[in-house]
Amino acid sequence: MPRKIILDCDPGHDDAVAMILAHGNPEIELVAITTVAGNQTLEKVTTNALSVATVIGLTGIPIAKGCDRPLVRQQEVAESVHGESGMEGPRQRPATTELDPRHAVDVIIETVMAHEPGEITIVPTGALTNIALAARKEPAIVDRVREVVLMGGGFHEGNWSPVAEFNIKIDPEAAHIVFSEPWPVTMVGLDLTHQALATPEVVEQVKAVGTTPGEFVLDLFEFFTEAYRDNQGFDYPPVHDPCAVAYVADPTVMTVRKAPVDIELTGTLTLGMTVTDLRGPAPDDCHTQVAVELDRDKFWGLVVDALRRIGEVES
Amino acid sequence: MPRKIILDCDPGHDDAVAMILAHGNPEIELVAITTVAGNQTLEKVTTNALSVATVIGLTGIPIAKGCDRPLVRQQEVAESVHGESGMEGPRQRPATTELDPRHAVDVIIETVMAHEPGEITIVPTGALTNIALAARKEPAIVDRVREVVLMGGGFHEGNWSPVAEFNIKIDPEAAHIVFSEPWPVTMVGLDLTHQALATPEVVEQVKAVGTTPGEFVLDLFEFFTEAYRDNQGFDYPPVHDPCAVAYVADPTVMTVRKAPVDIELTGTLTLGMTVTDLRGPAPDDCHTQVAVELDRDKFWGLVVDALRRIGEVES
Amino acid sequence: MPRKIILDCDPGHDDAVAMILAHGNPEIELVAITTVAGNQTLEKVTTNALSVATVIGLTGIPIAKGCDRPLVRQQEVAESVHGESGMEGPRQRPATTELDPRHAVDVIIETVMAHEPGEITIVPTGALTNIALAARKEPAIVDRVREVVLMGGGFHEGNWSPVAEFNIKIDPEAAHIVFSEPWPVTMVGLDLTHQALATPEVVEQVKAVGTTPGEFVLDLFEFFTEAYRDNQGFDYPPVHDPCAVAYVADPTVMTVRKAPVDIELTGTLTLGMTVTDLRGPAPDDCHTQVAVELDRDKFWGLVVDALRRIGEVES
Amino acid sequence: MPRKIILDCDPGHDDAVAMILAHGNPEIELVAITTVAGNQTLEKVTTNALSVATVIGLTGIPIAKGCDRPLVRQQEVAESVHGESGMEGPRQRPATTELDPRHAVDVIIETVMAHEPGEITIVPTGALTNIALAARKEPAIVDRVREVVLMGGGFHEGNWSPVAEFNIKIDPEAAHIVFSEPWPVTMVGLDLTHQALATPEVVEQVKAVGTTPGEFVLDLFEFFTEAYRDNQGFDYPPVHDPCAVAYVADPTVMTVRKAPVDIELTGTLTLGMTVTDLRGPAPDDCHTQVAVELDRDKFWGLVVDALRRIGEVES
Repeated sequence: MPRKIILDCDPGHDDAVAMILAHGNPEIELVAITTVAGNQTLEKVTTNALSVATVIGLTGIPIAKGCDRPLVRQQEVAESVHGESGMEGPRQRPATTELDPRHAVDVIIETVMAHEPGEITIVPTGALTNIALAARKEPAIVDRVREVVLMGGGFHEGNWSPVAEFNIKIDPEAAHIVFSEPWPVTMVGLDLTHQALATPEVVEQVKAVGTTPGEFVLDLFEFFTEAYRDNQGFDYPPVHDPCAVAYVADPTVMTVRKAPVDIELTGTLTLGMTVTDLRGPAPDDCHTQVAVELDRDKFWGLVVDALRRIGEVES
Repeated sequence: MPRKIILDCDPGHDDAVAMILAHGNPEIELVAITTVAGNQTLEKVTTNALSVATVIGLTGIPIAKGCDRPLVRQQEVAESVHGESGMEGPRQRPATTELDPRHAVDVIIETVMAHEPGEITIVPTGALTNIALAARKEPAIVDRVREVVLMGGGFHEGNWSPVAEFNIKIDPEAAHIVFSEPWPVTMVGLDLTHQALATPEVVEQVKAVGTTPGEFVLDLFEFFTEAYRDNQGFDYPPVHDPCAVAYVADPTVMTVRKAPVDIELTGTLTLGMTVTDLRGPAPDDCHTQVAVELDRDKFWGLVVDALRRIGEVES
Repeated sequence: MPRKIILDCDPGHDDAVAMILAHGNPEIELVAITTVAGNQTLEKVTTNALSVATVIGLTGIPIAKGCDRPLVRQQEVAESVHGESGMEGPRQRPATTELDPRHAVDVIIETVMAHEPGEITIVPTGALTNIALAARKEPAIVDRVREVVLMGGGFHEGNWSPVAEFNIKIDPEAAHIVFSEPWPVTMVGLDLTHQALATPEVVEQVKAVGTTPGEFVLDLFEFFTEAYRDNQGFDYPPVHDPCAVAYVADPTVMTVRKAPVDIELTGTLTLGMTVTDLRGPAPDDCHTQVAVELDRDKFWGLVVDALRRIGEVES
Repeated sequence: MPRKIILDCDPGHDDAVAMILAHGNPEIELVAITTVAGNQTLEKVTTNALSVATVIGLTGIPIAKGCDRPLVRQQEVAESVHGESGMEGPRQRPATTELDPRHAVDVIIETVMAHEPGEITIVPTGALTNIALAARKEPAIVDRVREVVLMGGGFHEGNWSPVAEFNIKIDPEAAHIVFSEPWPVTMVGLDLTHQALATPEVVEQVKAVGTTPGEFVLDLFEFFTEAYRDNQGFDYPPVHDPCAVAYVADPTVMTVRKAPVDIELTGTLTLGMTVTDLRGPAPDDCHTQVAVELDRDKFWGLVVDALRRIGEVES
């Protein structure tokens, strides 16, 4: 039986690929998409989410707009990585998909409460603002959610500071809430996602799919490659967000390690660090784990396979 | 025309008196009561709010339950001040009032959005968790609210630490959100409320009312007097929360001073301090002000008058 | 028997007046002057200290140069208050006094250790860098010093931030060390020194002395008056530093109150605040006290009397 | 020409091995040993330093006692690692060596100032309290020291917290001073020293030396092995401190990487972390570098060779 997930995202190039994987993978049933300010403003990432849905023929599920800024901090966007629109590269497609009128926080709460305990997995690939607010507004979701598998953080790697990752650093208080609640949390962080590079071989595989959604991915990769080369000195861009979806689709796609993780909230140099205790075996009641090593072939196989299953989409 | 207020509270002895003043004062129209964890757990303060409503014959408005813990921090209650029930002293009365099924955050948002801009004043007398969540979930309320008049903080006085007050210290991140949004904020802090002591003369005035709600207030005062004497060395207890309501009812009841206020979030000794810059005149765009000096007679006159107007209540 | 003091200072206009009071007051025996970066760079304040000594005929005691920057933080000077030289106003006088070759920290340690326990009082009127280093280099001085009477901090007032004072804020870690060691500490803070204003009446009294050192003080006051008027909105300038010396000369010059004081080291808004717990009686083992109310007449009487006793000085 | 070093240490099992390497290696001229509170109290580590000197026949250089506690923080010792004496294991030998009467801070300053610029290298293997105080008391040493090669910190590893190492965490302000001054700093941290394990093969090599100092090392290893096994889950103990000395003796013993390093001073979870920016090439003016990979054979070869050169010592 496929795993039901809510994808909470801020598209974002790699969020778009996460949507594709979540939509096309047969082990996953995407039940809602919620958006949150992050890579760009809420308006932009929501427009992008609707646009991706249209491009890949994703219909029949709620897409809802969430929080427009972090819980406590001033807003920061990643324009240097994702461009002015938040998803620069592909030509803009007018979305035919409509927005759910509810707030993302309520969609999350209502979806979780309407399903059986243990049915819904939350997959956040942006700042954790919506998830944190949902957990505070309806604490009952915490016991009811199967697990949270998130892209964010890192135990050794940072990108938005020497030791912190963008999604966590822009809303560290929200992250602290999500990591502190007793649901199972899998942190798919930079240590893992820096292994998910869109190399020329990967590009070739996507090209071979030969569909409009495939073209769309190639356009995303093209911009993303330049952005990461110019700003962060990468030869090929890490495609972070689908890694979290991939772990839900097939946990053998990466190795994980149980370890306590907490968020640094007061550090001058370390604000938003996902402090991970790797000094020994995790305590028995540890509810967090971190992603360590990616099976690259399996991962890209999942992405390409999802594209193939999506097939051609009329636009 | 009376001022429409939402009273967001955690009864709490002085919250009960705030409810009485808000209900009985002719210059105020109480449109909703929302509860938040603080003086005691959410369940207890909500039970207390319903109980007070029954005692004072308050009906026809929503009373809604809100957040059960602070945004980011571990929960702390003020059992040493308010006792095990959060409103020790008066005998427990079964509440006949019913709870609104909505979450307090949604009641706040919907109430503000359903009224004209500038119509609704929010009067928080507990932790600012609900208000902060409402502002994050629906940012449009910030422009629409007339003002926020809150009991909390202090520019020189502290009670939950040398320099921080309970309502702010238990959820400093929520307070930071509320003080940072550009709506007008009046901080009725300890500097002011430590002037609102329930002295023997005040007790006599309440006795003279001679009603059941009056008896109820006397029972509240009795417990509160002991709690403040035993725990904080006060001769008479400061009755904090109605001061904020009184300022809405009649702004001449206290002097205020414009001054920038921000919340300390990282201090080891100063966490939750309402840092107030009193070094010179406030800048022109300053949207915060602090309460300085109370007209005691006028204040207690308002409270006793409200009790008189409430009159006898069948129970 | 006069009280032996080491004056650790950063002249500075008010430091100069502190030197005058310490030199001219018969209840005080000035045994050493040490300098520390603060109001201006170490070179400048040391030049100023030698210059003041020359102007007032102070000879025969060591004047030694100390630390040129704070323990941990980046250096900050108060040029807006004291001008480019750190003692703008009076014409520059070439100093005939010579500097002691030893480091201030060693002069402090050696002076304290060479006297009987309880003989030496340390009077810091600048950042506490030298005193902190002395206490760490030779912990034995802590038990041996009679008391530390310092100008700095404030329980309600701030000047270098809404809640912090310059001397403490520029080296909060040094202040933390000094306030944490178990010697008796009297904090003569802004709450007190803002009562020590050089009003026109005070200026008249100084004028009446009619000596060169008196002229020098008038020149200091003139610049200081303008600096405080232009930068901090004061009608008359607070002459902070001699207040600490005055308390040693005659403790009845001000009221003090025992209260725990600790320094905030991590606050974003409150860094360097002298957090004072005034909520109840101080614990029995409390070794810190804060100055509350100044007897203005007595204070200025002490200053003018010191000037009179110094009399005319050949230059 | 051998490199002149001051070894600032807190023996400590691995500090003892560092002394041995510094004494026995022909590329190093040990010009002073200074002690600092850390692994144990100042009295204990100083006793241990003198004792090691006696055991290995080290004479003719000053051994001086330094700071007895961290700059700002409460003192913490590593009794769980080094035992009650700070060097449990070997039988106590009465030291015949005498202590220099000067304070370690003055020995450091005077030694550096008495040599040519660029002659002296400081090798701290404990908390950086003495070095920080020396740099503050005599800023001129900073330009004059050739480099600081210290054991402490780590870019990915922690031991005294998930992300901080003992020497840095117990006095983070001192570390901040040392890392911030513009002298060249090489951080030989846990990432490197966790490669310097005293495996059975290493023990065999030491046994083969067959001298009293060799026996002494074996006794150190025996206790250290148990301590690390019981407390930190290591099969073999990392022998941290001689790694720093080894780098001075032969820089080819490890690879290093230039990278900015700064100390976290306000983090709740990350206090004392040596935050290292490994995201790209270091800026040109970067004065810090971190040790990455150890040539184990070369390292242990240096240690064993030093023991051989020391030979038998009469006791």
